Amino acid sequence: MKKFVYFFGNGIAEGFGLGKMLLGGKGAGLHEMANAGLPVPPGFTITTEVCSYYYKNNKSFPAGLEDEVLENLKKVEEAKGQKFGDPENPLLVSVRSGAPVSMPGMMDTILNLGLNDETVKGLSKMANERFAYDSYRRFLQMFGDVVLKIKKDEFDRELEEVKMSKAAKLSKDVKDIKDTDLDAEDWKEVVKRFKEVIKRHGKKVPEDPYEQLWMAIKAVFDSWMNPRAIEYRKIYKIPDDWGTACNVVAMVFGNLGDDSGTGVMFTRDPSTGEKVIFGEFLPNAQGEDIVAGIRTPMPLSKVKEWDPDIYEQLVDLANKLENYYKEMQDIEFTIERKKVWLLQTRKGKRTPKAEIKIAVDMAKEGLITKDEAVLRVDPYNLEKVLHPYIDERNAPEPLASGIPASPGAATGYVVFDPEEAHAWKEGGKKVILVRTETSPEDIKGMAAAEGILTSRGGKTSHAAVVARGMGKPAVVGAESLNINEKEGFFTVGNIKVSKGDVITIDGSSGKIYLGDVPKVMPELTGEVAEILNWADEFRKIGVRANADTPKDAEIARNFGAEGIGLARTEHMFFGEDRIWNFRTMIIFAESKGENYERAKEKIKSYQREDFKGILKAMDGLPVIIRLLDPPLHEFLPTEEEQIKEMAQKLGVEEKLIKTLVENTKEINPMLGHRGVRLAITFPDIYIMQTEAIAEATLELKKEGYNPKPKIMLPLVAFETEMEYMRKLIKETLQKYGLENEIEVGTMIELPRAALMADRIAKFADFFSYGTNDLTQTTLGFSRDDVGKFLYKYLENKLVPEDPFQSVDDGVVKLVEMGVKLGRSTNEKLEIGVCGEHGGDPKSIYKFYEAGVDYVSASPYRVPVARLAAAQASLKQLTGAAT
Amino acid sequence: MKKFVYFFGNGIAEGFGLGKMLLGGKGAGLHEMANAGLPVPPGFTITTEVCSYYYKNNKSFPAGLEDEVLENLKKVEEAKGQKFGDPENPLLVSVRSGAPVSMPGMMDTILNLGLNDETVKGLSKMANERFAYDSYRRFLQMFGDVVLKIKKDEFDRELEEVKMSKAAKLSKDVKDIKDTDLDAEDWKEVVKRFKEVIKRHGKKVPEDPYEQLWMAIKAVFDSWMNPRAIEYRKIYKIPDDWGTACNVVAMVFGNLGDDSGTGVMFTRDPSTGEKVIFGEFLPNAQGEDIVAGIRTPMPLSKVKEWDPDIYEQLVDLANKLENYYKEMQDIEFTIERKKVWLLQTRKGKRTPKAEIKIAVDMAKEGLITKDEAVLRVDPYNLEKVLHPYIDERNAPEPLASGIPASPGAATGYVVFDPEEAHAWKEGGKKVILVRTETSPEDIKGMAAAEGILTSRGGKTSHAAVVARGMGKPAVVGAESLNINEKEGFFTVGNIKVSKGDVITIDGSSGKIYLGDVPKVMPELTGEVAEILNWADEFRKIGVRANADTPKDAEIARNFGAEGIGLARTEHMFFGEDRIWNFRTMIIFAESKGENYERAKEKIKSYQREDFKGILKAMDGLPVIIRLLDPPLHEFLPTEEEQIKEMAQKLGVEEKLIKTLVENTKEINPMLGHRGVRLAITFPDIYIMQTEAIAEATLELKKEGYNPKPKIMLPLVAFETEMEYMRKLIKETLQKYGLENEIEVGTMIELPRAALMADRIAKFADFFSYGTNDLTQTTLGFSRDDVGKFLYKYLENKLVPEDPFQSVDDGVVKLVEMGVKLGRSTNEKLEIGVCGEHGGDPKSIYKFYEAGVDYVSASPYRVPVARLAAAQASLKQLTGAAT
Repeated sequence: MKKFVYFFGNGIAEGFGLGKMLLGGKGAGLHEMANAGLPVPPGFTITTEVCSYYYKNNKSFPAGLEDEVLENLKKVEEAKGQKFGDPENPLLVSVRSGAPVSMPGMMDTILNLGLNDETVKGLSKMANERFAYDSYRRFLQMFGDVVLKIKKDEFDRELEEVKMSKAAKLSKDVKDIKDTDLDAEDWKEVVKRFKEVIKRHGKKVPEDPYEQLWMAIKAVFDSWMNPRAIEYRKIYKIPDDWGTACNVVAMVFGNLGDDSGTGVMFTRDPSTGEKVIFGEFLPNAQGEDIVAGIRTPMPLSKVKEWDPDIYEQLVDLANKLENYYKEMQDIEFTIERKKVWLLQTRKGKRTPKAEIKIAVDMAKEGLITKDEAVLRVDPYNLEKVLHPYIDERNAPEPLASGIPASPGAATGYVVFDPEEAHAWKEGGKKVILVRTETSPEDIKGMAAAEGILTSRGGKTSHAAVVARGMGKPAVVGAESLNINEKEGFFTVGNIKVSKGDVITIDGSSGKIYLGDVPKVMPELTGEVAEILNWADEFRKIGVRANADTPKDAEIARNFGAEGIGLARTEHMFFGEDRIWNFRTMIIFAESKGENYERAKEKIKSYQREDFKGILKAMDGLPVIIRLLDPPLHEFLPTEEEQIKEMAQKLGVEEKLIKTLVENTKEINPMLGHRGVRLAITFPDIYIMQTEAIAEATLELKKEGYNPKPKIMLPLVAFETEMEYMRKLIKETLQKYGLENEIEVGTMIELPRAALMADRIAKFADFFSYGTNDLTQTTLGFSRDDVGKFLYKYLENKLVPEDPFQSVDDGVVKLVEMGVKLGRSTNEKLEIGVCGEHGGDPKSIYKFYEAGVDYVSASPYRVPVARLAAAQASLKQLTGAAT
Repeated sequence: MKKFVYFFGNGIAEGFGLGKMLLGGKGAGLHEMANAGLPVPPGFTITTEVCSYYYKNNKSFPAGLEDEVLENLKKVEEAKGQKFGDPENPLLVSVRSGAPVSMPGMMDTILNLGLNDETVKGLSKMANERFAYDSYRRFLQMFGDVVLKIKKDEFDRELEEVKMSKAAKLSKDVKDIKDTDLDAEDWKEVVKRFKEVIKRHGKKVPEDPYEQLWMAIKAVFDSWMNPRAIEYRKIYKIPDDWGTACNVVAMVFGNLGDDSGTGVMFTRDPSTGEKVIFGEFLPNAQGEDIVAGIRTPMPLSKVKEWDPDIYEQLVDLANKLENYYKEMQDIEFTIERKKVWLLQTRKGKRTPKAEIKIAVDMAKEGLITKDEAVLRVDPYNLEKVLHPYIDERNAPEPLASGIPASPGAATGYVVFDPEEAHAWKEGGKKVILVRTETSPEDIKGMAAAEGILTSRGGKTSHAAVVARGMGKPAVVGAESLNINEKEGFFTVGNIKVSKGDVITIDGSSGKIYLGDVPKVMPELTGEVAEILNWADEFRKIGVRANADTPKDAEIARNFGAEGIGLARTEHMFFGEDRIWNFRTMIIFAESKGENYERAKEKIKSYQREDFKGILKAMDGLPVIIRLLDPPLHEFLPTEEEQIKEMAQKLGVEEKLIKTLVENTKEINPMLGHRGVRLAITFPDIYIMQTEAIAEATLELKKEGYNPKPKIMLPLVAFETEMEYMRKLIKETLQKYGLENEIEVGTMIELPRAALMADRIAKFADFFSYGTNDLTQTTLGFSRDDVGKFLYKYLENKLVPEDPFQSVDDGVVKLVEMGVKLGRSTNEKLEIGVCGEHGGDPKSIYKFYEAGVDYVSASPYRVPVARLAAAQASLKQLTGAAT
């Protein structure tokens, strides 16, 4: 017969080694501590399988469970030398939930179970009457709340009334009456009133402790499906069918007097990671008292004064547990009449910074290996420490929140107009650009701003993508903001924030604060640098950066980028002069002539300088330059006024421009006349860009540099496009004698390109997966529009995550196919990923499996990518799941 | 050594059986006729391999060719009993091009080669002086034109002048002077003048016949690359590297006197297909005289009177050739002094109607088998006979032309406004709706029109797709039309066409005519019906129709559809009342309430009637109903006025509607909030539609019908969507007890759905490939915008065809994957194609190979699909290439 219940205590640990999936985290810890001979009160664990059975079988228990529970309860009685329900020396137990992963506060627990009108008397004798009735009323309230579903407030109200009469008696204000002011009689009164509350509801706490026990066990399993637990699992992606275990443990009491107490300790400082025992202790109290925050506990270090011997014991136990688990532990303990009991140990939560320091320190101490250290740092946490962030413990209440779109925190004056943002910045003021949504014309203002805040759009809206590209904090889609750009203010409920007011945004949390909120600054030094160097030892694929400017290229290089995987060229067309020259080119594209040639030469010279800057910053490393991608209409004005201005400036008829604007309009611009398609109809642009790249290369070589540009074509679908354009580009390079030196490759960002990669690879030196567009086309999701329904998909778990954040399986399949097919016809083909996913740890793991040579991420995500790429190699080595 | 030259004549045929690829069509025919002992003048063929060599080797000839030519020329001399360049009895030859496929008039030919100032005298003796100098001037002009590149006009001008002096001499008008009026002296004068023309250009016709011959052979190979031949090959997709052969054949003369002549004959009537010898004959003439149209030839039947014996011979030869080739032949012949010579035979061109009749007749005659007959009919031609079409031989000059978007011809009054089109139709007038482009709001007007004409958009624009769906002729993207919709006229150059003028459009050719042009009407009877019945015997996959109305369903069924593969439901929402009810539903989607429920019920009742109609028309056959697909904004008004009207009508604030309009706007609607995504956020629509389908089914059953509806979800990307919606729909069907009867399947129209078909198939009873949208997403082509660059792709041969017309390889790969993956998890899965490609023969073949169960085409394309599907099976059987 299947075993459902495992005993621990008294040096026995039946469940030792069976793991958290079966025993839950708390249960596994208790068995392990018991096994190690550590002081754990005796008890037993009912497995998660029982929970699963419970839900699969219409909330009933498997046959034989009752016998097993009773049998194990007997063992507890024996170990503790007490008897359950014994009026003289009653055994009390706690009944606690404990899921495979910690879900703090989400499920229910009942303490002091076993008390009734008889046993409370026994308890009085064992300790004292005040303690016994205090325990009793706690039990009644918890049982009433958890099992009988009576609201806690109703009990609290009764307690408040008893305190009021006590206050009257003592002529004190009720606020000053503490629990410790109540005596045995008071607690008896409370017990009486609590029973009345329960009776009012037509309910009753059974006198029979066994009945109590069964009801409590059932309630614990029931609590697995309470709404907040379901919600929590949704957020943290914990499967509903894992279930919780239920631990029944003999009570030990921290509230038996001043020689007792309760506390928690961490084996290292969870904020900084320093190797010091850290924690809190509350004398004469039960665990909930710490959680409830009614009394202020003392720092653990004070225990040394309270009882140096116990402090010694605690430090010793902490070290033993850490050495045993090879992991920083969060330990709950109770001291009952000077005897230390361990009630729980688990992996301690910590700040991102502490996570890194602990991993590095433990490796240095020899507790774990270097690769274990690398695997222990969550890349998402690494990302957090690399941006200025807000320590929420010291932050005020946020004003509102939106979607965290680009990590980091920024403070500045609110400005609504991009031009104004630029002007204020010039005037030395830091600004936050607040817009309903942004468009390419806002680039200048976005570049000037410390951070971007929008009320529309998702994680892959224009604002979000550009901000991440610029490494600037951004909060987008903050829908509670009513923005009036024209009049220069926004409101959130009754609060109005006007131009010039100071706000702080946190792009890591999505929170928006009034005023300047202090930030924690990032650094790539110390343990962070160390863990990344270790990561590089294990990493098997390259990490490059997506960077469009020399400044970004430098940041990326400092962050360890081994080249540029994507240098977009379109932003280079948007500067004040440049846009006019480019518009001139567009206008005279058909007729050509002097104006056209002059404008083209000017843009070429700008581009040449841009390219020189980037190539210099990445000297000696590959720089993949993507030729112009966006549709022409993005460069044309749309408003009457602007069209007029353009006509005047370029000396053409307004009608001409209007026709052009009309003709370049598109119903689905994402699938429109852009990328390599532009060059098929208008090859001059790519020829000009190729010339600028060639000239920049030759000039830098003369200056003694070692530039390594590669040319990349966007939006290729057909092998014929590649063949056609490659020829054109190679012919252009030939004029500079660079045709054998500068490689020509393509983005793979359309399903056809991946499906037909064997054909395309014949004409490409490299592939770079543009997984943003590939996600759009593969899933048929426009990232500009997906906000309208994606939330429902997430809500209903129709997608596991935002597919623009973490790459979708279908897209991965195309990456795999493209890698295999591409290499089948071109052995030398280099394959990378330069979409947003190139900086997403989960996605990086999948790309690694698919066989890419490198990933390319935005500069601030380069360290994250280095770590994630290393973890991917290590995980594959160890065969572990993601 | 490789053989480059093949002799024929005198019962010998060296090249017999070597085929058209090597000998060209003309050459292969000559060798075959010679082999069969038919009267062919002796000659030889220089192979297409020489042409390929010529272009690959800088226009030089392979070693040994010269010797081979001279050797074969000797054989011709022997066979003919004449000598090349002999002043007494000179051999004259023709030098003719002849490619593997016929390219009529595209390449060059030189006749009478071998003439010079000496041999012309010999020829005079052999025949007469007039004939000899007439032949000489013909040679000089052809050689001057083809070899020396002197424009023909210059020669014509000289001839004109000689005719003018002749006219003066005869006191006649020059117009009345015919070639036959010129005598030997006149032709000598012409010869003199022609030589002067040539001299003026500093050129010269060599006196040496061998030199003439080499120059002529070279000119024939050069003509393979003349611009019009290149253009022709582009249009007919003939590879440039096939090359032409060159035939050197002894001249025979039809212009030796009244006992001579020349003609062409078809073994059956090429217009009607009737089994009668058909052709033309011109006594005392050379072949070019017929082509040039200078004299009117007599019908072949008249030859019986001219010479009954020769007529007998011709009929006999025609029958022999047809029996030999088992194909209708187009034969050139010359009669030289009562002796019949065959100069060429080839497969005769014929009208679509004749093609079908000939195939059927030949099968019945036992000349070919039934399956050969089925394979001989070009499905594209079948399509032509199934729409009213314009017999271009009897049509006036077109006014303009556009893209042929939906086949068939239509005549009507020009109307620019859809409302007006509807009103005119109600008033009993036939109209052609002329729009810059159409949008879903124009549906009513489109439905009322006989045909649609637009100046923008391509074969897959809204106008084109809707028109094809409605089976209405459409010409789109007629860019030379300047349409002024507001003022109600359009112009083409100087011609103005106003509202109320009558035009005719031919959606098969793209031509637009002024006035009413007579049309040939289609029928599914006689040979057409017969060939389709035979096709059905060989066909292995099903053919269904895309039809949205009972009328279309009926047409489709009459055309042989075995069910409906796609019944779109969106058009059902656009009627006058319906749109208001649907708008009400949208407006109150959040708040619900009485108005909402009432509107929903009304739409449901409309839909129920629609579904009943379609199900009745397809009684007993499957009808796949696709639930609502388009984004909600398509149903909302956009103009201020309309918004106001809507607000008043529905009794809500204007602001509410504006916000809704604003909120439903999308940047890339194709990738937006539509299809199943609508139902994820707004399930009521699909529930309502499911109820309507269920109720229609139950009502029809009561009435004794056998309805077989299936429910299809559009735009599914994720298996989770399918699981979620399937459950919802099955629950809804359960209320009617139909949950086991009505299947639920999905469109496969996004790459992810095909890539993950194994996951999706677990929740789908059937797949239907929506290859329109799948093409859009796989290639990243918006069919609304692709017109901006696709022409360049076609021009540069970057795509073989419009991928929305004939399915792209990448899309086919997804179909293959989806079929394999889908069946791997669901054996019973039924798989079809319902995109436009379902009616395209080339695509059908690919789908058949990919393993689909059926294709679904628009009603008028159902017969085409039946034929193409049969051919696909037969081609696979015989292992032939597409």
